[in-house]
Amino acid sequence: MYTIVTDFERPDPALVERAKNVYVCLAGIEVGPRQCVDSAIKPLRHDWKIAGPAFTVRPEYTDDSLMSRVATAHVKPGDVLVIDAGGRTDCSNFGASMAAGALENGCAGVVLDGVVLTGQMLREEEGLPIFCRGTVARNGGGAKPGWLNSPVICGGVIVNPGDLVLADDDGVVVVPKDRAEDIVSRAEAAGQKSRDGRQSGTSYHVRSGAEEKLRAIPGVVWQD
Amino acid sequence: MYTIVTDFERPDPALVERAKNVYVCLAGIEVGPRQCVDSAIKPLRHDWKIAGPAFTVRPEYTDDSLMSRVATAHVKPGDVLVIDAGGRTDCSNFGASMAAGALENGCAGVVLDGVVLTGQMLREEEGLPIFCRGTVARNGGGAKPGWLNSPVICGGVIVNPGDLVLADDDGVVVVPKDRAEDIVSRAEAAGQKSRDGRQSGTSYHVRSGAEEKLRAIPGVVWQD
Amino acid sequence: MYTIVTDFERPDPALVERAKNVYVCLAGIEVGPRQCVDSAIKPLRHDWKIAGPAFTVRPEYTDDSLMSRVATAHVKPGDVLVIDAGGRTDCSNFGASMAAGALENGCAGVVLDGVVLTGQMLREEEGLPIFCRGTVARNGGGAKPGWLNSPVICGGVIVNPGDLVLADDDGVVVVPKDRAEDIVSRAEAAGQKSRDGRQSGTSYHVRSGAEEKLRAIPGVVWQD
Amino acid sequence: MYTIVTDFERPDPALVERAKNVYVCLAGIEVGPRQCVDSAIKPLRHDWKIAGPAFTVRPEYTDDSLMSRVATAHVKPGDVLVIDAGGRTDCSNFGASMAAGALENGCAGVVLDGVVLTGQMLREEEGLPIFCRGTVARNGGGAKPGWLNSPVICGGVIVNPGDLVLADDDGVVVVPKDRAEDIVSRAEAAGQKSRDGRQSGTSYHVRSGAEEKLRAIPGVVWQD
Amino acid sequence: MYTIVTDFERPDPALVERAKNVYVCLAGIEVGPRQCVDSAIKPLRHDWKIAGPAFTVRPEYTDDSLMSRVATAHVKPGDVLVIDAGGRTDCSNFGASMAAGALENGCAGVVLDGVVLTGQMLREEEGLPIFCRGTVARNGGGAKPGWLNSPVICGGVIVNPGDLVLADDDGVVVVPKDRAEDIVSRAEAAGQKSRDGRQSGTSYHVRSGAEEKLRAIPGVVWQD
Amino acid sequence: MYTIVTDFERPDPALVERAKNVYVCLAGIEVGPRQCVDSAIKPLRHDWKIAGPAFTVRPEYTDDSLMSRVATAHVKPGDVLVIDAGGRTDCSNFGASMAAGALENGCAGVVLDGVVLTGQMLREEEGLPIFCRGTVARNGGGAKPGWLNSPVICGGVIVNPGDLVLADDDGVVVVPKDRAEDIVSRAEAAGQKSRDGRQSGTSYHVRSGAEEKLRAIPGVVWQD
Repeated sequence: MYTIVTDFERPDPALVERAKNVYVCLAGIEVGPRQCVDSAIKPLRHDWKIAGPAFTVRPEYTDDSLMSRVATAHVKPGDVLVIDAGGRTDCSNFGASMAAGALENGCAGVVLDGVVLTGQMLREEEGLPIFCRGTVARNGGGAKPGWLNSPVICGGVIVNPGDLVLADDDGVVVVPKDRAEDIVSRAEAAGQKSRDGRQSGTSYHVRSGAEEKLRAIPGVVWQD
Repeated sequence: MYTIVTDFERPDPALVERAKNVYVCLAGIEVGPRQCVDSAIKPLRHDWKIAGPAFTVRPEYTDDSLMSRVATAHVKPGDVLVIDAGGRTDCSNFGASMAAGALENGCAGVVLDGVVLTGQMLREEEGLPIFCRGTVARNGGGAKPGWLNSPVICGGVIVNPGDLVLADDDGVVVVPKDRAEDIVSRAEAAGQKSRDGRQSGTSYHVRSGAEEKLRAIPGVVWQD
Repeated sequence: MYTIVTDFERPDPALVERAKNVYVCLAGIEVGPRQCVDSAIKPLRHDWKIAGPAFTVRPEYTDDSLMSRVATAHVKPGDVLVIDAGGRTDCSNFGASMAAGALENGCAGVVLDGVVLTGQMLREEEGLPIFCRGTVARNGGGAKPGWLNSPVICGGVIVNPGDLVLADDDGVVVVPKDRAEDIVSRAEAAGQKSRDGRQSGTSYHVRSGAEEKLRAIPGVVWQD
Repeated sequence: MYTIVTDFERPDPALVERAKNVYVCLAGIEVGPRQCVDSAIKPLRHDWKIAGPAFTVRPEYTDDSLMSRVATAHVKPGDVLVIDAGGRTDCSNFGASMAAGALENGCAGVVLDGVVLTGQMLREEEGLPIFCRGTVARNGGGAKPGWLNSPVICGGVIVNPGDLVLADDDGVVVVPKDRAEDIVSRAEAAGQKSRDGRQSGTSYHVRSGAEEKLRAIPGVVWQD
Repeated sequence: MYTIVTDFERPDPALVERAKNVYVCLAGIEVGPRQCVDSAIKPLRHDWKIAGPAFTVRPEYTDDSLMSRVATAHVKPGDVLVIDAGGRTDCSNFGASMAAGALENGCAGVVLDGVVLTGQMLREEEGLPIFCRGTVARNGGGAKPGWLNSPVICGGVIVNPGDLVLADDDGVVVVPKDRAEDIVSRAEAAGQKSRDGRQSGTSYHVRSGAEEKLRAIPGVVWQD
Repeated sequence: MYTIVTDFERPDPALVERAKNVYVCLAGIEVGPRQCVDSAIKPLRHDWKIAGPAFTVRPEYTDDSLMSRVATAHVKPGDVLVIDAGGRTDCSNFGASMAAGALENGCAGVVLDGVVLTGQMLREEEGLPIFCRGTVARNGGGAKPGWLNSPVICGGVIVNPGDLVLADDDGVVVVPKDRAEDIVSRAEAAGQKSRDGRQSGTSYHVRSGAEEKLRAIPGVVWQD
C-alpha cells in the first residue's frame, strides 16, 4: 500500500551544473505553465537558489512528518527534497532538526508544499535552502506512513523522482527528466539573447518590437 | 474596440512634489476607503515610496504583457504605470526588461494588480519601485491587445489616467485628479498636527482623548 | 453591554522570565494545536520575540480603533496587547501613535488579528514588537465601544486576559494561565533534550529513530 | 487537561419557544456583529430553521470526530450541538449515524464549523437540521479527546454552553445567555414594526426615510 | 464629494427586449473577458434571468445600506440595480424591504457585489431577481453617504450607468452601452448558429472540428 | 511534447457495476485521504452519482477547451471524463455542446477541476452528470494543445487513466486501478455493517462505543 523507493535515476551531473546558471523564470517560460509551481511557495531567504533532482516525499496524513524524517536519511548529495504536504499551512512538516539531518547527507535544498517550524533557525543557522508556504509554531505528529519517491503534487505540479527542480526568489519550476536537456539548453539560449539585447545599446522599445505588434492587430484605435 | 491613448492631463508638478512628502496613510484617511488599494499589493522593497500621475494599462487577457511593454515607451518622466492584471498571481505581467524600458523614459514607479517575473533583479538592480502581489516564475504571452489610459481597476479601486498615485510600505492610495490639491493639503495638515502632538511632551493618552470618548458612550460598564 | 476591565491576574513574573527563553514552537507542541494562532499572523520584523500576559481588546466594530487606543493607557509593564480585529485586512486597528502610547506604559508587544497603519515607522522607529496580518494605508474610525479584558479570538484561538502569550517568527502560541507553569517546564525540558541530541555527536537519523518507526508499520513496502 | 461537562444551565423553555418565531436576521441586528457567525456556515436545506441552547463540542484534533460522537449521547431535548472543527473543509466531523444518535436524544439541530459526510442522507432522510460549511467524502478518525461544554469558536463567534443559538437560511446568530431575554424581546418588536410598516399601505420610500437622511448629510451633491 | 445622479441615458427598449432572449454566456464570449463578472456572484434562484440598463450604487462604507435604500426610489421600470459593496460577505447591503421598494418602481433585478439579508423571503416572496455572493444574518447601518450612477466595480468589472446588464445562472455580463447593439447582434447570431448545428443531425465531433485543429498543431504525438 | 493516448486499460465492468452501489464516502474512508478530491468540486445536481474509469484530459492552457472537445470523441461507453483545468474558476472548460458530444459516445459523467458554461442547460437538459467548481459566463478559446490520458491533478489528487472514479453529493473519490477490487470490497462490507447496525435495534451510543473509548483516554476529566 505504501511504497518506499530509495533510489531512482538522476539527471547527468553536468546538466545539473549547467542548470544552476540558468534563470529560473526562463526555464519556466520554456517548460510551459503546467510545470510552474504555485507562486505562494517561496524561499525563506531572497538570495537562495537551488537546482537538482527531485527526491519526492508524500505523507498519507499531512499533519505527520515521519516520512520527511525518514527521507533525510536517504537523499544523495545534490538531491532536492520535494515534500507534498497538500498545501497545508496550519501544521509543520519540516524544521531545523530535519534540516541538519538532510545536510549530513548532502541535500541541496527543500521544496515543501506546506510550512516549516523553527523558521528563524532555518533562515540563519542551518544553511539549507528551503522553499515553502511560510512558518508556523505548531508541529504535527511523527508516526504515520506514506510514500518515498512516488509521483507527488507540489503547488499544482506533478513531480516525479528524478525530475529537475529549479528554484529562486521568483518561484519553483519542475522540468520532467526526459525534457531536462532540451529545456536547459533553451533557457541558456534565451538568457544569452536577453543579455545580448541589453548590451547592444539598442533601446528596449526597439528591441521588444511590442509597438509594431500592437499596431498590426485589427480593432485597435490609436488616439495619439 | 481597444483604444490606445498616449497622453492625458497630469497634475501640477509642484503638487506632485508636495505629495512626495505626505504620509501615504494620512492621504488614505482623507480620501476615503474606496480609494485605498487592496493591502496585498505591496512594494518589493520596504523602503520604496512613490508619488506621481497614473498612466493606466489594461490588457484584455491578463496572461499577456504586450500592453505593459508598449506602455513603457509612452510614459512621461514622473508617471506611475498602473497595470490592471485582474489580481492574477499565476502569471507575470512585468519584469526586468520592461523595467529597464520604463526607466529609459523616466517612469517613477509601477503599481501592478498582479505579479512580476525576475523579482530579485527588480529588487536589487533596476531601481524602479514596484508595488505588486509578488513574484512568479511563469511568464505569459506578449501578443494580445488591450487599452492604454482607459479607466482600470487596481486592487478594488477605479483608477483614471492622471489620478495621483501615492504608495509606500503601507500600501497604495489613489487620489482622483480633481481632489488632488485638496487631499494633499489635508494630509499635510494632518501630518503637521501629528508631529506637533508628539513633540508637545503631552502623553499620547491625553492627546488622543480616547478614554474621554469611551466614557461618554452609554452602555459601557467600567470595572476598574 | 460593554465591559471595561482594567486589571486581571497575571502569571508570576519569574515564570514570564523563564518563558522568554523557551522556543515558541516547543511550547506550541506541548500546549496543543488549539492554542497555536493562525500562521498568517507574523512579526513585522523577523527578529522580534515576545513573552508576557495577554491584555485583551475587542472592538464591537472591527473598523474602529477606539478600544485599542484606550487599552494603551491601561496596560501594565510587560503586558502583551491582544487585539481581536476579526482577521480584517482592509482597515487598520493599530499604528505608530498608539505604539508610542503603549510604550509609555511599558507594553511588551502587540498581537493583532488584523493589520496596522504606518508599518515602516513601527518596524524602524517605535521599538514595540508587533505581530499582525500586515500593513494597510486605510484607517478606520476611533469612536465606537467594545470590551477590554473579556475573552477574545485571535487567529482562531480563544484568549483570556492573563493567558501567557509567546511569539516569534514562527508564530504565536497562547498558554492558558492555569497551564502556564506546566507548559513552560515541558518546553524547557524539550529544548534541553533537543540541544543535548545535537551536541551528542550522534547523527540525526539515529537520534530521531524515524526509520525504525516506519519499518514497524504494517503495509509499508520497501523497495531498496 | 480535557474537561467533559455534561450539563449546564439552559434558557427558559418559554423563551426558546418565543425565539423560534423571531427573524434570525433581526436578532442579528440587535445582538451586534460579533455574535453573527461567518456566513459560509449554511443549512443543508434552505427551509431549515433552529432555535435552542448550545451544547458545545471541541475536538483537540479537527480531523477526529470522537467528541461529536460522545456528545450525541449527552444532548438533552431541544439542545443544539455546536461543533468547533476549526473551519476545516477537507475532513468530516459529522454524518448520518451521528445524526441518528443525536435524534434519539431529542437534539434540535447542529451547527458545525466544518463539513459533513453523507450529506444527501442528512438532507433527505434523517430530519435533523444541520448548518455547516458543506459536504465531503473524506472521514477522519474517531479516537481522540477534546472538550464538551467548554467555550468554543464557531464561524468567528465565541459560544458558551447554554447560549441561545438561532439559525435559518441567512445564517447563524449566537445570543449570550444573559442577554437572551432582552434580545428576543427587541427582535420581536423589530419584527412587529416591520410587519406594521408593510401593512400600512405607505410606500417603502416614505417609511424608510432614507432620502431624507441622505439629503441631510453635508458634501452630497444632487444632480437631478 | 458625493454625487447623486438620478437619471442617465438608457439603451433602446427594443434592444433590451432582444437582449432578454440572448444566451448570457454567448454575450460573454462576444464582449470579452474583462466584462464577465466574478462567477461567485450568482442568482438566489437558478431560474432567474435579467436584462436591463445598470442603475449604479456605490456606498462609501460597504457596511452601510443607505445608498441602496435611496436608489430603490429612483430606479425606472426595467432598470437593474448594480450595487458595489466591494465584495463584502460579512454584512448585508440589501434585503426584503428594499426589494419591495424597488419593485414599487418597476426594478427588473439586482446585481450586488456583496450579500443579502432575508434571503429566504427574497427567494420565495418578493419576486425580484437578485444576483449576489450569498446571504447573511448581519445587517450594517443605514446612515452614510455615497454615489448614485457614478462608475462602480462589480465582481471585477467596471460598470457605468446605462450599461446593459445580462445575467442568468452562469453569471453576469456587462455590455458597455456603446457596444450593446453590436454585442446583442453577435450573440443572437452565435445562438442561431449553435441551434442550427444541433438540429443539423451532424455529430458534435464533425461540427466542432476540434480533432482537425489538434492534429494540425506541431509537437502533438498521437498514440492511437 | 504533448501526447494523445486514446485507449487504456479499464477496470472489469462487473467491478464498476458493484462500485455503483457503494457509498462514495465509505470508499473514501477505505482508500485514504490523499484520494479524496477537494470538496469544492460538487455535482450540479444533488441527485447525481457516477462510477466509472477515468479518461483524463489536461490542457496546457487552462483557458482553452480544445482538449475537452477532442476528448468527447474518444471516450468509450461508461468512461468518466476527468478534466484538469487547474482549479480555475474564471473561465469555462466545458458546456452543453461538449456534453452532447460526450453523450453520443456513452460518457458516464464528467469531473472537472474548473467551471462550466451553460450550467442551466447541463442541469436540466443534457442529462450528463457533471461535478465541477460551479458555472461561469465566460468562455476561453478552443485552439491549444495538451494531453489525453496522461496523469492529471483533480482537486489535489493525482488521477491516472483507468482509475476508478466514484462521485456523489459528498464529493469525488479516486481509486487507483490496482486497488479497485480491494477498496470496492471493503466499502461494500462497511456499508453492510452500517446497515446491520442501524437495523439491530441497538442505540447508536451502544453501537458506536464512543464513550467507552473516551473514558479510556488519560487526562480526560469528567464533570457529570
